[in-house]
Amino acid sequence: MTSYDSLLTELRSIALLESCGHVLGWDEQTYMPPGGAEHRANQLSLLAGMVHERATSPQLGDLLASAEQNEKSDDPDSPTAANLREARRKYDRSTKLPRRLVEELSRVCTLSQQAWVQARKDSKFADFLPWLEQVVALRREEADVVGYGDGVPYDALLDEYEPGMTAAEVTTLFAGLRDELVPLIAEIVDCGRQPDISILQRSYPVDKQRDFGTAAATAIGFDFHKGRLDEAAHPFCSGFGPGDTRLTTRYDEHHFPGAFFGTLHEAGHGIYEQGLNPAEFGTPMGTYTSLGIHESQSRLWENFVGRSRAFWNHYYSAAQQTFSTALTDVSEETFLWCVNDVRPTFIRVEADEATYNLHILLRFELEQPLVSGDLKPADVPAAWNEKFTQYFGITPPTDAMGCLQDIHWSGGGIGYFPTYSLGNMYAAQFFEAARRDLGDLDEQFAAGDFAPLKTWLNQNIHQRGQQYRANRLVEVVTGEQLDYRPLVQHLRAKFSELYGL
Amino acid sequence: MTSYDSLLTELRSIALLESCGHVLGWDEQTYMPPGGAEHRANQLSLLAGMVHERATSPQLGDLLASAEQNEKSDDPDSPTAANLREARRKYDRSTKLPRRLVEELSRVCTLSQQAWVQARKDSKFADFLPWLEQVVALRREEADVVGYGDGVPYDALLDEYEPGMTAAEVTTLFAGLRDELVPLIAEIVDCGRQPDISILQRSYPVDKQRDFGTAAATAIGFDFHKGRLDEAAHPFCSGFGPGDTRLTTRYDEHHFPGAFFGTLHEAGHGIYEQGLNPAEFGTPMGTYTSLGIHESQSRLWENFVGRSRAFWNHYYSAAQQTFSTALTDVSEETFLWCVNDVRPTFIRVEADEATYNLHILLRFELEQPLVSGDLKPADVPAAWNEKFTQYFGITPPTDAMGCLQDIHWSGGGIGYFPTYSLGNMYAAQFFEAARRDLGDLDEQFAAGDFAPLKTWLNQNIHQRGQQYRANRLVEVVTGEQLDYRPLVQHLRAKFSELYGL
Repeated sequence: MTSYDSLLTELRSIALLESCGHVLGWDEQTYMPPGGAEHRANQLSLLAGMVHERATSPQLGDLLASAEQNEKSDDPDSPTAANLREARRKYDRSTKLPRRLVEELSRVCTLSQQAWVQARKDSKFADFLPWLEQVVALRREEADVVGYGDGVPYDALLDEYEPGMTAAEVTTLFAGLRDELVPLIAEIVDCGRQPDISILQRSYPVDKQRDFGTAAATAIGFDFHKGRLDEAAHPFCSGFGPGDTRLTTRYDEHHFPGAFFGTLHEAGHGIYEQGLNPAEFGTPMGTYTSLGIHESQSRLWENFVGRSRAFWNHYYSAAQQTFSTALTDVSEETFLWCVNDVRPTFIRVEADEATYNLHILLRFELEQPLVSGDLKPADVPAAWNEKFTQYFGITPPTDAMGCLQDIHWSGGGIGYFPTYSLGNMYAAQFFEAARRDLGDLDEQFAAGDFAPLKTWLNQNIHQRGQQYRANRLVEVVTGEQLDYRPLVQHLRAKFSELYGL
Repeated sequence: MTSYDSLLTELRSIALLESCGHVLGWDEQTYMPPGGAEHRANQLSLLAGMVHERATSPQLGDLLASAEQNEKSDDPDSPTAANLREARRKYDRSTKLPRRLVEELSRVCTLSQQAWVQARKDSKFADFLPWLEQVVALRREEADVVGYGDGVPYDALLDEYEPGMTAAEVTTLFAGLRDELVPLIAEIVDCGRQPDISILQRSYPVDKQRDFGTAAATAIGFDFHKGRLDEAAHPFCSGFGPGDTRLTTRYDEHHFPGAFFGTLHEAGHGIYEQGLNPAEFGTPMGTYTSLGIHESQSRLWENFVGRSRAFWNHYYSAAQQTFSTALTDVSEETFLWCVNDVRPTFIRVEADEATYNLHILLRFELEQPLVSGDLKPADVPAAWNEKFTQYFGITPPTDAMGCLQDIHWSGGGIGYFPTYSLGNMYAAQFFEAARRDLGDLDEQFAAGDFAPLKTWLNQNIHQRGQQYRANRLVEVVTGEQLDYRPLVQHLRAKFSELYGL
């Protein structure tokens, strides 16, 4: 066995062990009885420790160095080069962190998250502040240890979720997006027309929602022979490995879009996981590119497909039959408008396709100065509310509906938010390219045929694993550089028509 | 930290890792999509390998030796002595097996089980025969490696499931049981009276069965805050660790007793798991005594409680209300008789409380000569049918309904069957002792009060872990030696009354 083969064998084995933790994590969120929490934490902590030990072992470092020595390649895009590049990136990042910092981060983030749950409940930012201060300080320390070249500390954090991306690039992209999005949303609000979204709060029996969502997820290409859909308080998708991908959603009888678009969203993640090359499981070539690219797949199916006129052209009569009490007097046009309602609201996870990005921009614009030290954690609520008022024209009445709403920071996830809007941009560019390659997608959707798009995504994105980093993947797939304009064009075209702008 | 403390820490950590596999195993049987089978097998094999490596490591051996050196105790029943005794037993047994034999057993048993599934389907013993030959040869080799002192090779296999028990002891007990049971069953058959068991095949809606079974499991003391009940093709109980015990059952609308008594049975196992001392998790003092003792707990709740007159005195009106269509014209007496129907049948897992033991005796009487070499695997079908006819008065029409019916041998489980009837004997003795200690149990059951019995089992059996081996535990708890007669008395008293013998 060459050192390269040995390296891959060890990476696969580590991933296999890690995937055991995914099963336990899924069970924790879906079926675990309350009394099992402490034992489960012990199990997960043991597995995580074992994975970390092997992923940072000197033996793995030796294998990696020796493989790099033996596998010289002129093609930086070859599978071998990609595997070595990404294995090196991950190994270096994890081994740079001293054990003390890893443990301290883990300890503080666990306690911080508990404190956040209570602080949000009480809407008392002061109770969360000391934890936010510690989290920011530790993550800032992590950035210094990991390093950020000529860039800024924020780059080192962003890089964990979106390898190779920099704060400067995101800043440029987000500035362009903001300059187009703020006026578009203002136009929508100012036009004075609004759909009657109370329609979506009528009675939609949960059993029927489950069947309808499962049928739609199947239709767009999620393979239930190799996956499941269950319920969880906080919906997610978890790929255990080849042949087993789990989706979760949550149902509310009086809120149709939540579970339905949530299911399409998670199914989009799931189709990505199911589309990875099973033979490459555990190696970079069999692993998703980045969180942003992952999000592009969920957003693409949720928004570009699931909220499109063509999609409901196909599905509305079935919806009307299934939810006859709720929809019998509702026209297709009205329903389409309802599921594309745009209006400023306080909570990110409930936001529409357009304003959602402003929620992300705001967070990114606070995270950067938080990490650089230009914004003190104590000043977050004021800064949040000021920016929120500026972007949305409304001011959060409480911190629970403002800067305390998201779990991310409490768990250490600083640098994560940008991947959501990057995902929207990637999705717009991929969708545009698919439309070029596949002809009239609307006609296909209207006929209930989603297979061409799914196959295109499989071939162009999923099967490539980490062969390219995210913005290079965009270039290879679309022929264009990463750009915010396709997203803006998509949003402007759709909402101009719906709102008659 | 003393070497004894270090030993316990390592044992706990190994058990924690092992318990991760239990979660994966449970998921495999309950929710895993079909496509996940191969990856799940890889995950479980990795975990099992890691557990085996740590459980047989020289470091663990050194810790054990050093702890034995330092912790001299005059009291062989002290927790420390028990922990060392059982840790030593387990370590010696696992380290004696050469890696080659462990791997060969694992490989052959996996293939053998697959061959058995097909052979049973086709009822073709010849297709299973080569595998049975290999399994017997390997297990016989294991017996030689493990050793059996002055006893017989079968002892070494039995010892895996029922530590300390010997074939000679089981032979004596089973002979006594057989001599009483065969005439009792003959009396029942010959009396010519039979309940109309078609009553139990009326319509019992599955949702109502689930609720009714869950309520009964809760009433007898299974804590759903620390456990769940799900569905699986082959019902089982899996204790993940403190605070998390999973039960499974299967429902058939037209067979009431299957799920109901199955749920009580698994709940009995679950109450044992939930009753173990959580502070001792992973050490012998926090582990169940033996498979036979485990089975005693499930049989006690299923049969001694769940099929008793007093139990239905309390529950029958609720059953009649819940399953009104099925039971409205059925008297309590008739129902009680139906759930205590005794008649010779071919399939062990469907057998009644009395004939069940004959199924076990037969298997034990074939396993011994199989292991000693006095019975050739090729001669198993003839020997099975001859014995079956002798004990039951009927002859299996096919091998699928005869010697191919059980999964155990195909998976290497030779020496396991006796624990089922030992469990029945232990249960009878424990129940008798509980009755002595707790007064009128019937009165308590008839009032729906199962807490005294559950608490008594917690204190006398569950919380003791492996402090005593099984037959010593019987002595400590009941003041009597292990004996078949309390079981016979229980059966004779119950069926004499029901059948008017």
